[in-house]
Amino acid sequence: MLSPAELDRLRVVLVDARNPLNIGAAARAMSNFGFSRLRVVNPYELAFRKARSAVGASDLLAAAEQYNSVADAVADCASVIGTTAVRHRELQHPLRRLDEDAGGAIRKQLQSENVALLFGSEKFGLSNEDLSHCHWLVRIPTREQHISMNLGQAVAVCLYELIRTPPAKGPAVRGKPARAGEVERITEALIDALCLSGYVKRGSGISTKTKVRRVVRRLNLAAADTDMWLGMLRQILWKLRSEKQ
Amino acid sequence: MLSPAELDRLRVVLVDARNPLNIGAAARAMSNFGFSRLRVVNPYELAFRKARSAVGASDLLAAAEQYNSVADAVADCASVIGTTAVRHRELQHPLRRLDEDAGGAIRKQLQSENVALLFGSEKFGLSNEDLSHCHWLVRIPTREQHISMNLGQAVAVCLYELIRTPPAKGPAVRGKPARAGEVERITEALIDALCLSGYVKRGSGISTKTKVRRVVRRLNLAAADTDMWLGMLRQILWKLRSEKQ
Repeated sequence: MLSPAELDRLRVVLVDARNPLNIGAAARAMSNFGFSRLRVVNPYELAFRKARSAVGASDLLAAAEQYNSVADAVADCASVIGTTAVRHRELQHPLRRLDEDAGGAIRKQLQSENVALLFGSEKFGLSNEDLSHCHWLVRIPTREQHISMNLGQAVAVCLYELIRTPPAKGPAVRGKPARAGEVERITEALIDALCLSGYVKRGSGISTKTKVRRVVRRLNLAAADTDMWLGMLRQILWKLRSEKQ
Repeated sequence: MLSPAELDRLRVVLVDARNPLNIGAAARAMSNFGFSRLRVVNPYELAFRKARSAVGASDLLAAAEQYNSVADAVADCASVIGTTAVRHRELQHPLRRLDEDAGGAIRKQLQSENVALLFGSEKFGLSNEDLSHCHWLVRIPTREQHISMNLGQAVAVCLYELIRTPPAKGPAVRGKPARAGEVERITEALIDALCLSGYVKRGSGISTKTKVRRVVRRLNLAAADTDMWLGMLRQILWKLRSEKQ
């Protein structure tokens, strides 16, 4: 059982949702289970308007916040978790099964921190760029022959796992984790230094940047350390720039 | 985890379903989680035809069996369980919460017997006549202010509860941790860059170096990522040094 404060810390983030019925269904499941913060990133405009104006559309849907990028939508969250149906993505991100350790891990984080739970578009799921903002991924245990769930049903199942009792035991705490906005500032400073030093080359820039974003997310930076990392990187950046002139 | 024989013993029974999208959604969740036997009682004819003819409608939906009464639909089942959002029905039937004892009870029965899980119409749920065929009722733990779930989502959540495995004990996999020697090489490259850029100053050097060493240890670097970190730092170092001359 999550407390009202814990319920309030979860942000359900729908990225590139295309179907108004799915946006409405996500909002309904959130309301059923006591969550309230819905965020949509780059929705198909008409779908979002339709979902909002549908008969019975809730206050929750009316209060949904719209963002132009995943980075903005998760900026106030210490933990960003992507949902995926694909098994082999564990090569790039830690992957947890919803019914094994993922539920407990999220519940634990909600005790003290904002958590973003990302759902991709109905057709393609989350893109590699979307995934580069995630700390880890969660997979609903669907069967091999039919892995892809309906968006509204996937949201309902994930939220049920979070609210059901008895809570599973979460992993050990490691101190307060850094917020996504701070992690992104550190990532940007690192990328700037890598561009100036020639590690990131013109042209091949995007994929290398995505790799860098991922490797920084895998560090699980602590909130208490972010100032020091930013300070170190900015000093290096300053030197790289001043030598240039 | 249910065995194929156990999955095959569950009959999902939709009574008086009115919306083809919900019938389709129920079938999709069944397929996602490995169930196959869908039965519909007295559906709105057009809805059932529409659901069957929808693009992507599955074999499962094509094989769905149609009945004129609940009695016929559950005739081959040893246990009949109704879903309800209403709390006070426990006056007439034993009522179990899905996340407390209901899931375990159904899994137990599926080991040896056919079980029917009944879902009522979108608007009214199961009628008293429908409920009179049930041995007990299951309630999804929705909140008091918004108890009624979407039909497709309710089916998905119930089936997820049946197939989920009890929480595993092991900690989350985060990949093999980096060896101390590799972490130290990364630390040295970082300290060199910080010396060249002026972050670490002559004289006050030792305590700052110690702080840097500690902050790197707190990252819990993964073995798979050490090469990339060393590569990035060495490129920055190379640039800082080459600019100097």
